Amino acid sequence: MISEQKTANVSLESLLRIFTVPEGPDSTLTQIEEELSRNLNKFLREHIVAEEKPLRDIEKDFSYASIPEQPEFVSDHTQHLLDKLVSQSVHTSAPSFIGHMTSALPYFLMPLSKIMIALNQNLVKIETSKAFTPLERQVLGMLHRLIYQKDDGFYSQWMHSANHSLGAFCSGGTIANITALWVARNNALKADGDFAGVEKEGLFRAMQHYNYDGLAILVSERGHYSLKKAADVLGIGQQGLVPIKTDVNNRICPVDLQNKITELKAKRIKPFAVIGVAGTTETGNIDPLADIARVCQKEQCHFHVDAAWGGATLMSNNYRSLLSGVELADSVTIDAHKQLYIPMGAGMVLFKDPNSMKSIEHHAQYILRRGSKDLGSHTLEGSRSGMAMLVYAAMHIISRPGYELLIDQSIEKARYFADLIEQQPDFELVSKPELCLLTYRYLPAHVRVALEKADPARQELLNELLNELTKFVQKRQRETGLSFVSRTRLNPARWNNLNTIVFRVVLANPLTTCDILQSVLEEQRQIILSAPKLMGRIEALTKEINAN
Amino acid sequence: MISEQKTANVSLESLLRIFTVPEGPDSTLTQIEEELSRNLNKFLREHIVAEEKPLRDIEKDFSYASIPEQPEFVSDHTQHLLDKLVSQSVHTSAPSFIGHMTSALPYFLMPLSKIMIALNQNLVKIETSKAFTPLERQVLGMLHRLIYQKDDGFYSQWMHSANHSLGAFCSGGTIANITALWVARNNALKADGDFAGVEKEGLFRAMQHYNYDGLAILVSERGHYSLKKAADVLGIGQQGLVPIKTDVNNRICPVDLQNKITELKAKRIKPFAVIGVAGTTETGNIDPLADIARVCQKEQCHFHVDAAWGGATLMSNNYRSLLSGVELADSVTIDAHKQLYIPMGAGMVLFKDPNSMKSIEHHAQYILRRGSKDLGSHTLEGSRSGMAMLVYAAMHIISRPGYELLIDQSIEKARYFADLIEQQPDFELVSKPELCLLTYRYLPAHVRVALEKADPARQELLNELLNELTKFVQKRQRETGLSFVSRTRLNPARWNNLNTIVFRVVLANPLTTCDILQSVLEEQRQIILSAPKLMGRIEALTKEINAN
Repeated sequence: MISEQKTANVSLESLLRIFTVPEGPDSTLTQIEEELSRNLNKFLREHIVAEEKPLRDIEKDFSYASIPEQPEFVSDHTQHLLDKLVSQSVHTSAPSFIGHMTSALPYFLMPLSKIMIALNQNLVKIETSKAFTPLERQVLGMLHRLIYQKDDGFYSQWMHSANHSLGAFCSGGTIANITALWVARNNALKADGDFAGVEKEGLFRAMQHYNYDGLAILVSERGHYSLKKAADVLGIGQQGLVPIKTDVNNRICPVDLQNKITELKAKRIKPFAVIGVAGTTETGNIDPLADIARVCQKEQCHFHVDAAWGGATLMSNNYRSLLSGVELADSVTIDAHKQLYIPMGAGMVLFKDPNSMKSIEHHAQYILRRGSKDLGSHTLEGSRSGMAMLVYAAMHIISRPGYELLIDQSIEKARYFADLIEQQPDFELVSKPELCLLTYRYLPAHVRVALEKADPARQELLNELLNELTKFVQKRQRETGLSFVSRTRLNPARWNNLNTIVFRVVLANPLTTCDILQSVLEEQRQIILSAPKLMGRIEALTKEINAN
Repeated sequence: MISEQKTANVSLESLLRIFTVPEGPDSTLTQIEEELSRNLNKFLREHIVAEEKPLRDIEKDFSYASIPEQPEFVSDHTQHLLDKLVSQSVHTSAPSFIGHMTSALPYFLMPLSKIMIALNQNLVKIETSKAFTPLERQVLGMLHRLIYQKDDGFYSQWMHSANHSLGAFCSGGTIANITALWVARNNALKADGDFAGVEKEGLFRAMQHYNYDGLAILVSERGHYSLKKAADVLGIGQQGLVPIKTDVNNRICPVDLQNKITELKAKRIKPFAVIGVAGTTETGNIDPLADIARVCQKEQCHFHVDAAWGGATLMSNNYRSLLSGVELADSVTIDAHKQLYIPMGAGMVLFKDPNSMKSIEHHAQYILRRGSKDLGSHTLEGSRSGMAMLVYAAMHIISRPGYELLIDQSIEKARYFADLIEQQPDFELVSKPELCLLTYRYLPAHVRVALEKADPARQELLNELLNELTKFVQKRQRETGLSFVSRTRLNPARWNNLNTIVFRVVLANPLTTCDILQSVLEEQRQIILSAPKLMGRIEALTKEINAN
């Protein structure tokens, strides 16, 4: 390899060596790989700098906009990556980093990933993926069954059928959601009489043919931001994504949904899809899926469930009833890189009906020929890697009861943390965990009393100061690097729907202990001590209000 | 880990161990990983079964559609993967497998991939990717400069600008092309007067506002199949993808392009984008990009170049002039997982104007906040892995002159193979290599004479028999597993545009030698000997024609 030469220079011979001769056992890269294999957490702890460096400073290391004219030795470059990249990356698997949906990974997935990458299959077609194609179809079948629980006959008939598809493996939940809505749109505007279908003639002709004045996708106001993107890409327009009111538990109101559909139809706007959320990104709540299904059936809408995050809950027989009604959905999105503990890049969308995806099927002369089993004829993406192998391996090694334990402990840990917060006189639990996600903020008892009794103007003022405090604490905690919670903005009914900044916690990492949760609160209290000015203003206003 | 227990059963304790305790040095998985690290080609040769097993048989191993209720030991499962998956995968990196665009990978990318996966960053936002964000922006900057060659000032102004974007990293060329056309569509139908823009109001209102009767994307008839998919998704409709005639070298005819645009405009159909192909999938040719650019500028169309495969040629100062005019494109697609030798999943789209992507920019409350540098505000995908790290490392370790050598030797090897084929009395070179892709077929001299002098009916008949032969040889060669060429269908002018099945060869693998190329032809001759019946029919018809 280049790194063995005395000076790094370019020759065809040296280049051929990087394709044929591996790094030696003593090379920097091999050493690092072994260090990482032996103890990943130690490796990350030692190489990731805890304290945050300003982004502007990091950018200086990545500012040269030319492809280098001089080759670097592999070892030198590896050291450079350690110093400049790894050191300033995010320790997503740390047990005290409880603000992300990205968690720790099982160890066995790392060597398996290397095998997957070394095989470098392309799943767009059989010719470049062979056994990976039936494997991916099996993984889709397993997830389909997890949701829809059809019988053996169903899967032996459809799972490997060339002209059918139980779903699509995607790079992530966004592409999965777009795929579901693409299918729904094309089925709603399908060929009819002399109209060849929206996929052939486009949206403008489709609207003229069906005499619609608009299209709509309905989702709770807590729907994921990617749905707006989907509405844009698909030509519906972001205004066609109609938000439906949620109740105090952040769940869609079925009556409002029904009313909105009636309203849209009266305006000749076709509501072609309704999305139920199973695990809202900000609060982790689950829509009443069975109720939505009833409305969809009555109104002939495609019913999609965005379970990108919450779908893994179906693995637990103890909690799968939380998603009751999901089996009535026409399509469901699940991300394996969230609560199924797979590395980034493993989204999936499943369709109840093996014929659904026909509306987006495509073929070409040289690949995806009609009747072939090439997966590419039913995916938005083209060339794709063999990520399905990692899902397959995890399903077999962890197994369903293993996932059940992981899901259960997450939910129970979230309940523990919720109880812990409620026991504290100086914190407020803002949203209760339905799954393993909760939100809270710092709100000492006497400030809470003031916030309750204040007149609207002062209530808003005090709440704004508390928002500032929450932002400050979250940012400082992140910068210090010992632990991490994320933050978002909610509008709790309890506080007259005032904009309320909250800490957001996702307890998916199985290595997070109760002790860690206690110390997260303790650290937040300590950070607050370092903001005497802001706290002073909060105390003064509290005193003023409480004095009245 | 589970594998150390006497029997595989499920307990929280055993599950926590898979997150904390790596596989031991003697475990099957570790052994395999080391074997692979020491000698990848040996590993693949020994573990991939050369002779092809029917897909139907492979499917039997992937037919169980339930998530297992019993966990497996890591070692047992690894053995299972070796036996059932790896053994039946495709040896994409074999030097004699010259039918794919997927080639061998440099060794150093495998341990680096493992580091990338272990870090498990999510590039949708800074909060889960930190230094990976400026790194990805730098990689996009490097590729941008490779194409557009702007000066230092340009890159220091725009590369890290929060509200601008030089492009997007994607899972592959299809998403890159869709992104480019999405941007083009939204810019063509932007906000105007009381119209809020297609991204907000949708395609139907946009057409009404601009008084268009249709939208069109123009591309040569050799355009990639994914463009049809793009036209469908974006609501244009596949009929809106208008094919333009190509010349004998498979290059778009600019006069036909101009005429078609005039024709469309007369029908109030808006041609909002023209696509130039730099490296057609089937023949490897490059459109006259500068000519297309002139038409686009005159007609105010977005000019996109699909250089997914051929774009890497820009790395060679000796051959980059083949893509002359690419710097005039508004956007360009390049796949790093093709000729930049990166593992599957590294597509990119670059935009000349840092403001172009504003038309698809999106924000949310909790991430992608306005003014943030989150990459997710300008990508079709949401959560994404840190693949850009691998491109970055390869750019530094191989460097531009290294890539130049790789590109040059590919092109020169293709020319060698073309010469070799032309020297054979029994093979016909069907398309000459402009880059490192060529097509050919078996056509002995006396059969060629017959094919030339035959009347149209017999010419077609003979040609059909030759097609059958080419299909047979390609299939048998693949099944035997010693070497692999792909096949496609062309319509050569030399043969009155008859449907002609050809062998298709891509010479990107630096390890492919001239000896291997000779033996590929030799093997094909041997396979033909095993088809005496078919050859008998060809000989008989040839004799009959030549007798006249």
